[in-house]
Amino acid sequence: MAKTLAIVMFSGTADKFIPLGVLTQTAANLGLSVRIFVTGFATPYFTKNKPEPRFPKEFEDFVPKIHEGMERIKAPSWYDMLKDAKEAGDVKIYVCSLMAEIMGIKKEDMDPIVDDVVGATYFMQESGDAEIIFI
Amino acid sequence: MAKTLAIVMFSGTADKFIPLGVLTQTAANLGLSVRIFVTGFATPYFTKNKPEPRFPKEFEDFVPKIHEGMERIKAPSWYDMLKDAKEAGDVKIYVCSLMAEIMGIKKEDMDPIVDDVVGATYFMQESGDAEIIFI
Amino acid sequence: MAKTLAIVMFSGTADKFIPLGVLTQTAANLGLSVRIFVTGFATPYFTKNKPEPRFPKEFEDFVPKIHEGMERIKAPSWYDMLKDAKEAGDVKIYVCSLMAEIMGIKKEDMDPIVDDVVGATYFMQESGDAEIIFI
Repeated sequence: MAKTLAIVMFSGTADKFIPLGVLTQTAANLGLSVRIFVTGFATPYFTKNKPEPRFPKEFEDFVPKIHEGMERIKAPSWYDMLKDAKEAGDVKIYVCSLMAEIMGIKKEDMDPIVDDVVGATYFMQESGDAEIIFI
Repeated sequence: MAKTLAIVMFSGTADKFIPLGVLTQTAANLGLSVRIFVTGFATPYFTKNKPEPRFPKEFEDFVPKIHEGMERIKAPSWYDMLKDAKEAGDVKIYVCSLMAEIMGIKKEDMDPIVDDVVGATYFMQESGDAEIIFI
Repeated sequence: MAKTLAIVMFSGTADKFIPLGVLTQTAANLGLSVRIFVTGFATPYFTKNKPEPRFPKEFEDFVPKIHEGMERIKAPSWYDMLKDAKEAGDVKIYVCSLMAEIMGIKKEDMDPIVDDVVGATYFMQESGDAEIIFI
């Protein structure tokens, strides 16, 4: 396995944050480094002023069942999974500087979970020979 | 090329099942192992009781044309492509145990095409140095 | 880093074309080869007769802000980013022959930015030991 998992977190719908949390936590627990590059509609969810979660229109009827199931098994939130993964291993969360600029988001608006605001070139260089996935 | 293609099949919209089938079949025919990890809204489509296919709202007007085109060229269904790929090569389909639990889906509810219900850690270890894509 | 970045460009919503452009241009500038395989609802946007851009229904309220931000920072279009990347480095754009056939799109309908219409097998072989991402 590559020693680093690099995740481009683009999609902003609430469902996609579950695999972001699970894959990051799993990789960190397996001793992999994780580099997350937040961009697109995922960006505002990494600021202090998060929008309401939005589920894909096609599966809105599934949402109550998902919520009920997550409560039943006491699944941690994506935010807590990322926070735990950062404590357990080498996990860095970067926000895309281009998207932050487009959306008018400043460094001081970022959630404390964010390590830095960087460009795509920095991310791709930092990712080295990582396995990259695009969520 | 990596010797294994690992696919996280997350999206549940009907369009995404076409590349799942095509990439799996292509990789199997090229002699690669394929490991599919089914999670998110794709999960119910791997049970015996599949929901109706749902296309992305943004492109619903394209759907009749896609259906007509697939019939015209006699394109196989994603299910048949996966089935054929499993017969042709080393292809395993795993359903995410966390998502199955959240959705209240039991092992006996799974479609026979599913090999096992496993956790993300198992999948990531099994994927080894695979090339991972997230659909 | 892998010497080749292979991108399966499947999603057709307008937001996803931004990372296609940015990642392609960044990779080309870093000296990587890039191979793009256009399929799914992205396909018609690579013809001469492009449909209107469509944003994800879930984030339509963000669109004016994105447009305003892109104009403010004079962000290039995805098309210009791909064009520049093709001039700067080894970038090839292939359209999926299966999807072209399903949609009834002929070679002569393709935008000049497209290098060829090929099958998934060709793409996967050409990608060699590339890092593959699915957008």
